[in-house]
Amino acid sequence: MNEIQTAAPPAAPPPAESAAVNTDLAARFRTIRETTSWLAAPLSPEDCTVQAMPDASPTKWHLAHTSWFFETFVLVPGLAGYSEFHPDFRVLFNSYYNSVGAQHARFERGLITRPSLAETRAYREHVDAALLRLLEKGGLSDELAAFVEVGLHHEQQHQELIVTDLKALFARNPLGPVYRPALGTPAPGAAPPLGWKRFEEGVLPIGHDGPGFAFDNEGPRHRVFLESFEIATRPATAGEYLEFMDDGGYRRPELWLSEGWGQAQANGWQAPLYWLEREGRTGDWHQQTLAGWRPVDPAEAVCHLSFYEADAFARWAGARLPTEAEWEVAATAELRSGRKEEGNFLEDGRFHPAAPASLASPSKGLSQLFGDVWEWTQSPYVGYPGYRPPQGALGEYNGKFMVNQIVLRGGSCATPRSHIRATYRNFFPTGARWQFSGVRLARDAR
Amino acid sequence: MNEIQTAAPPAAPPPAESAAVNTDLAARFRTIRETTSWLAAPLSPEDCTVQAMPDASPTKWHLAHTSWFFETFVLVPGLAGYSEFHPDFRVLFNSYYNSVGAQHARFERGLITRPSLAETRAYREHVDAALLRLLEKGGLSDELAAFVEVGLHHEQQHQELIVTDLKALFARNPLGPVYRPALGTPAPGAAPPLGWKRFEEGVLPIGHDGPGFAFDNEGPRHRVFLESFEIATRPATAGEYLEFMDDGGYRRPELWLSEGWGQAQANGWQAPLYWLEREGRTGDWHQQTLAGWRPVDPAEAVCHLSFYEADAFARWAGARLPTEAEWEVAATAELRSGRKEEGNFLEDGRFHPAAPASLASPSKGLSQLFGDVWEWTQSPYVGYPGYRPPQGALGEYNGKFMVNQIVLRGGSCATPRSHIRATYRNFFPTGARWQFSGVRLARDAR
Amino acid sequence: MNEIQTAAPPAAPPPAESAAVNTDLAARFRTIRETTSWLAAPLSPEDCTVQAMPDASPTKWHLAHTSWFFETFVLVPGLAGYSEFHPDFRVLFNSYYNSVGAQHARFERGLITRPSLAETRAYREHVDAALLRLLEKGGLSDELAAFVEVGLHHEQQHQELIVTDLKALFARNPLGPVYRPALGTPAPGAAPPLGWKRFEEGVLPIGHDGPGFAFDNEGPRHRVFLESFEIATRPATAGEYLEFMDDGGYRRPELWLSEGWGQAQANGWQAPLYWLEREGRTGDWHQQTLAGWRPVDPAEAVCHLSFYEADAFARWAGARLPTEAEWEVAATAELRSGRKEEGNFLEDGRFHPAAPASLASPSKGLSQLFGDVWEWTQSPYVGYPGYRPPQGALGEYNGKFMVNQIVLRGGSCATPRSHIRATYRNFFPTGARWQFSGVRLARDAR
Amino acid sequence: MNEIQTAAPPAAPPPAESAAVNTDLAARFRTIRETTSWLAAPLSPEDCTVQAMPDASPTKWHLAHTSWFFETFVLVPGLAGYSEFHPDFRVLFNSYYNSVGAQHARFERGLITRPSLAETRAYREHVDAALLRLLEKGGLSDELAAFVEVGLHHEQQHQELIVTDLKALFARNPLGPVYRPALGTPAPGAAPPLGWKRFEEGVLPIGHDGPGFAFDNEGPRHRVFLESFEIATRPATAGEYLEFMDDGGYRRPELWLSEGWGQAQANGWQAPLYWLEREGRTGDWHQQTLAGWRPVDPAEAVCHLSFYEADAFARWAGARLPTEAEWEVAATAELRSGRKEEGNFLEDGRFHPAAPASLASPSKGLSQLFGDVWEWTQSPYVGYPGYRPPQGALGEYNGKFMVNQIVLRGGSCATPRSHIRATYRNFFPTGARWQFSGVRLARDAR
Repeated sequence: MNEIQTAAPPAAPPPAESAAVNTDLAARFRTIRETTSWLAAPLSPEDCTVQAMPDASPTKWHLAHTSWFFETFVLVPGLAGYSEFHPDFRVLFNSYYNSVGAQHARFERGLITRPSLAETRAYREHVDAALLRLLEKGGLSDELAAFVEVGLHHEQQHQELIVTDLKALFARNPLGPVYRPALGTPAPGAAPPLGWKRFEEGVLPIGHDGPGFAFDNEGPRHRVFLESFEIATRPATAGEYLEFMDDGGYRRPELWLSEGWGQAQANGWQAPLYWLEREGRTGDWHQQTLAGWRPVDPAEAVCHLSFYEADAFARWAGARLPTEAEWEVAATAELRSGRKEEGNFLEDGRFHPAAPASLASPSKGLSQLFGDVWEWTQSPYVGYPGYRPPQGALGEYNGKFMVNQIVLRGGSCATPRSHIRATYRNFFPTGARWQFSGVRLARDAR
Repeated sequence: MNEIQTAAPPAAPPPAESAAVNTDLAARFRTIRETTSWLAAPLSPEDCTVQAMPDASPTKWHLAHTSWFFETFVLVPGLAGYSEFHPDFRVLFNSYYNSVGAQHARFERGLITRPSLAETRAYREHVDAALLRLLEKGGLSDELAAFVEVGLHHEQQHQELIVTDLKALFARNPLGPVYRPALGTPAPGAAPPLGWKRFEEGVLPIGHDGPGFAFDNEGPRHRVFLESFEIATRPATAGEYLEFMDDGGYRRPELWLSEGWGQAQANGWQAPLYWLEREGRTGDWHQQTLAGWRPVDPAEAVCHLSFYEADAFARWAGARLPTEAEWEVAATAELRSGRKEEGNFLEDGRFHPAAPASLASPSKGLSQLFGDVWEWTQSPYVGYPGYRPPQGALGEYNGKFMVNQIVLRGGSCATPRSHIRATYRNFFPTGARWQFSGVRLARDAR
Repeated sequence: MNEIQTAAPPAAPPPAESAAVNTDLAARFRTIRETTSWLAAPLSPEDCTVQAMPDASPTKWHLAHTSWFFETFVLVPGLAGYSEFHPDFRVLFNSYYNSVGAQHARFERGLITRPSLAETRAYREHVDAALLRLLEKGGLSDELAAFVEVGLHHEQQHQELIVTDLKALFARNPLGPVYRPALGTPAPGAAPPLGWKRFEEGVLPIGHDGPGFAFDNEGPRHRVFLESFEIATRPATAGEYLEFMDDGGYRRPELWLSEGWGQAQANGWQAPLYWLEREGRTGDWHQQTLAGWRPVDPAEAVCHLSFYEADAFARWAGARLPTEAEWEVAATAELRSGRKEEGNFLEDGRFHPAAPASLASPSKGLSQLFGDVWEWTQSPYVGYPGYRPPQGALGEYNGKFMVNQIVLRGGSCATPRSHIRATYRNFFPTGARWQFSGVRLARDAR
Repeated sequence: MNEIQTAAPPAAPPPAESAAVNTDLAARFRTIRETTSWLAAPLSPEDCTVQAMPDASPTKWHLAHTSWFFETFVLVPGLAGYSEFHPDFRVLFNSYYNSVGAQHARFERGLITRPSLAETRAYREHVDAALLRLLEKGGLSDELAAFVEVGLHHEQQHQELIVTDLKALFARNPLGPVYRPALGTPAPGAAPPLGWKRFEEGVLPIGHDGPGFAFDNEGPRHRVFLESFEIATRPATAGEYLEFMDDGGYRRPELWLSEGWGQAQANGWQAPLYWLEREGRTGDWHQQTLAGWRPVDPAEAVCHLSFYEADAFARWAGARLPTEAEWEVAATAELRSGRKEEGNFLEDGRFHPAAPASLASPSKGLSQLFGDVWEWTQSPYVGYPGYRPPQGALGEYNGKFMVNQIVLRGGSCATPRSHIRATYRNFFPTGARWQFSGVRLARDAR
């Protein structure tokens, strides 16, 4: 997926990070908050206000809610004399924390024309100044420091949602708005041939065990028994997906889960989201990107698939989706091998400008694990053995969503690089297509 | 209805109208277009972009669509060398004219963040300059002149919709935005006592017969037979409506049309739209206005009723709604009597700043016929005998909506004064409440 | 419309009516109740229980509700010592009378598998025996006699609904059930040529003024002013409607009301309800009747149109729909002329077995006014001037439905002959197609 | 759950099973088919025809579809000269087998009043006779024999659905129909105290490995790693669930999955399905059973819970739901222990008449594993490692539903006894409540 090329470097890039970036919470705070602002920089007040669909949120809401998170969980309890920017924001920008109180209805986020974008930016500045004051005076309790940490990762999650929700919005506009122009043209080339890597059966550990930050749903680290399996060396490409389409993929119920077939029929799915045949030219597939319309590139990772489509494609290919445990075992092994992963994802502070790794440096191991596209697994999103949500509001962060969703692994071109890790569990409902979601095949070992 | 008090005069009022205002099409064009801009002046780009509900449209869409009307029906056919501002606008801002071609989906008008408000203003200026060029060079054909004329009345209709649609939008915002502050406090006072005026049976003419502009649906002038009837000297007040509510008006199905009762139950109607009891204080009714929340004033005309509520109220009052023919006969007689109507409505160029007529100068005849609130009649909206829609696109203006709607007469505080006349037929579906719609009682003569 | 041919005489016909049938309430009661039973005779318990759609009711419900009407409004108040058949039936078979109390939900009428059909018949017999006891002992108050009278007309309305609702049910069954076989083949022939009859302008009386029964909504008799008009000598035929279809009637929005066009697109209307092209044979239109599938006969009156289709067809034909006043004036004149109307409708006690009047005896005046098809007018259903609903439960019979419906006049092949009169006002929503509804054209006089 | 007491033995019980019942396919075929008929015996044609809701099917449809299964998969391919009972049944009674062809719409199954119940019984007899002819002549291929076998298990699944779907239907009838009267009164008594049984961590095998029949989704047998866990000795009781309710269980979002909370609010859930407080008597909970209304018995297993409610209850109880692997490991151990399970479920040929085992003979091990209620696990329904759907139509039996459903284990009072086994995987969507579904707690070992 080289949607990444649609992004130019910022006109005024954020200040370079200091050497102490990873250890200095204040510096990281500054960098990450600035990245969010940089993402919104090309957008008009109108762009930032509208909600493309009930599943998506306006950019302005993302800007405000991430600030609300720091205000509610860090400043109000931790900074003596802090005064809330606006008393009504407590409800207005609460996403889903029942323990904090009432929430503005999710599907009405797009009706909030006030506060304006300018006021929302002032809200951010108000929170930033107070937070930095708190950080810089030192002596932060461990609990508050943990909230700042999770707030930064939370902010990065919303950075990705800003990009995906905006793409959904612009796609509904017949004028075809461009977010940022593409940076150069990808080098012509084909994807490397699909290979398989084998892993042997065994009782294997998965899940986070530190050091470093992880969300509560990434643990506890625990043992699973896996049969021997093989996993593809790269994600499936648009070219391979076109073969599936040409072979009647969208017309053959035997390839689909029953529910998926029903949704595909009801919604008239004929191709990935954002793909369209040019009028009167069958098979001439173009796709809408944040840099505008362009032809589908057979070498890029296929993207914007629902779980149902990923699953049908895998069945058509004589393979299956990996479980999340298989994926994590494979990715961890790859990282330990020392091979350098060259993904396309959101750098802190800017989009990565390089050509896609898959074309430039075909890996001998597993490539494109991180960046490019989120990879649908076959694993429903449930708590790990022994999982218990944290006490307090953070207990609502992940645990209460553990039903009727599927885990995706890896990370996309819109995921911040520092936000990625092998244990990360992303999750979406089976019909979701507006995320940068693709597929990596797996199969039982022969 | 003294919502009018919510409006301040413009900081920079539009230029005074010349003495030739009624005869000079160019001057009227300038004035009316400026009034539209003045209405949008207090609004942010965000406010102008969002669609409160499928029935309403964004202010930006109103600004663009009214310009599209002049461009499509006057400039493209009538101004040699005119080049359209943007080729995609032909579809994007077409409301419902099948004869012009395809239309952007009505319920997606709120997703169009581009063009921006600034670009939309530029579109208006582009059209204004070209239209004035056309008008000023003279020699306009009668047909084109007629299109300019209807375009101005069309623009005035959208001026009212800007106000009503904005009110619907701000009402969904928990921050309670204020459009324009109220101008002073209404003089304390009571509504004049309700009187009745009698009209005798006969074959009577109604409908427009010129001179002056009227929409096609106001004619042909034709004869109707009316039994003797009486009509109330003023609209029903909020105080009278509170009596209806206190008497169980919303709990007694025998007062309601069956379909109305069903809607009232399904939607939980307990009071007019925009009324709310303050938390924990039963009967302490407040209402949201464009100047913010304020207590309901028993002396003002009750407003924001659906047809069902107006009908139930009339039945409760031992009366009925007037037919549109009765209303027009009564209003025409009133106008001929020479009594000066003091309504509260939108002046060309500014809101009327005076206190409500009903309080200041109780009429001996019928008062508040025009301005204040649109008055629901009992007449379904159908074509008059002999009515035929005009040829061409204007045939789609009114005729194709003549089903399942009810006629309202008079005009509201949001209706431009020069847009009002006794033959004017407004129409909305029976459940609509977001217009400034009230009720004047009638009854069979004893 | 010769759907009438689908009905055979009953195997065991009801007893011949006595000479005193029109004056003897008990005899009429017996005859009409037996006709209802005869209509249900070919139906299985299963057929009688299921609800084809929310707008329709099961036959069993019709059988029970008509008995409930006599029980509730005549027997309980009027027959000393009468005991209700089942206490729960008071709610279960109350259609919409709030003054009687709660009602079982309309859309769940089809879930009531108990009482069984046999029990429902026992309920009818229980009510019949008691009612006849009451009638035969004499001394009935005028008020109760009036309730018996309205109960009989009410029963006849449900006789028609049994037929239309059953047709809707059988149409959803791929096995194509036959209700009763057709009786012979219609004589081959063409419809008589379409003529026009002119009526002159004037203030004319319409509405019922007795003697004889009428529903409250047929009065008061009152004056209307009509312009001169012409009305077609017969309903439009299927052949004429096929011309409309062949001329793009369903593809040309300019022929349609906006709301009708929307419904036609949303529901995929391409022909009248119950018409279908045989697979792979374009233009080979067949229709489902209660006697099974048969080819569309161009000579018969077109049927199962919505108001929107009738209106679009009239516009295409360069004509319009008549107002209900025009229709009544024309029909009254026709009846006074002494010409014998030969309609196809439901005789008391059996379906009329004759061939359609339109083919056998082309009238010199207006033909097929009664029977064949209900004729859509252009008149919304509202109360006549001076109309007041009766006191008590009967006030809910008609008045509360006077909104968002259109008047139909005449009567269909499923309407009992003795139920028909020139002042009768039938009414349905604009999208309804499952009634036997057609169209007679009108136009302004030249 | 002693719903079982609601059933009386059949007036004319099916013939006793021969000693060879397990080996003689023909005898088993006869017995199982007769059991189905016996289940429908108390029902009227009306009862058998109506569809309570889109998720449920009419009894008549179950009677026909199970016959269709044998006809389509055994008789047509296997019995020379067999002629289908009715050509249209191929589509009409196809549930979801795309490989067989088109299907009648699921939500319209209740509109099929023809074939009648009598004709449907004739269809069954036609199929039975032919199938027995085929079986008795011997020489059945292994493939056909396998289809007969799966057809019998399929029939047993539909036996349970007949009961659950009928309960859903009768519950909508205000007359409160009784299916079969209860047999005696349960012995007064309390549930045994809740105990916990511990299982140690390890790599453990689960899944079917024969001998005997199992569905494809019960295999392949495979290894899983389990942490040490404890599982409750019996299902949760109605009394325990009442404590949850009294403690605000339905008012505390922190106990619920977010999606479950949303559904509970939207649907107004306040108690298990079929529970109702008697009017005006708070806390006086009654429940509708197939033997009519009766008070909730605190000792019985709580039933008719959605997954969301089971999950919230477990969280409230400081426990969790078991995984399906934990459940199977525990159940298998219990069976191997030789303790005799005394469940309440559907005997082949009749309901079990005994009082509930939990009251009569409290087990020292795990009790009520089979019969009484299906037990929600926490495991989403996915294929086991190495699972591949069978070739052909049977491949559509289970595999294509492996998404967005949750596994239930055990079996209910409506499950045929011979249909139950420890590896059986039942599955329903998270919001389903009309099955006999309850909850057994589990927890991590201390």
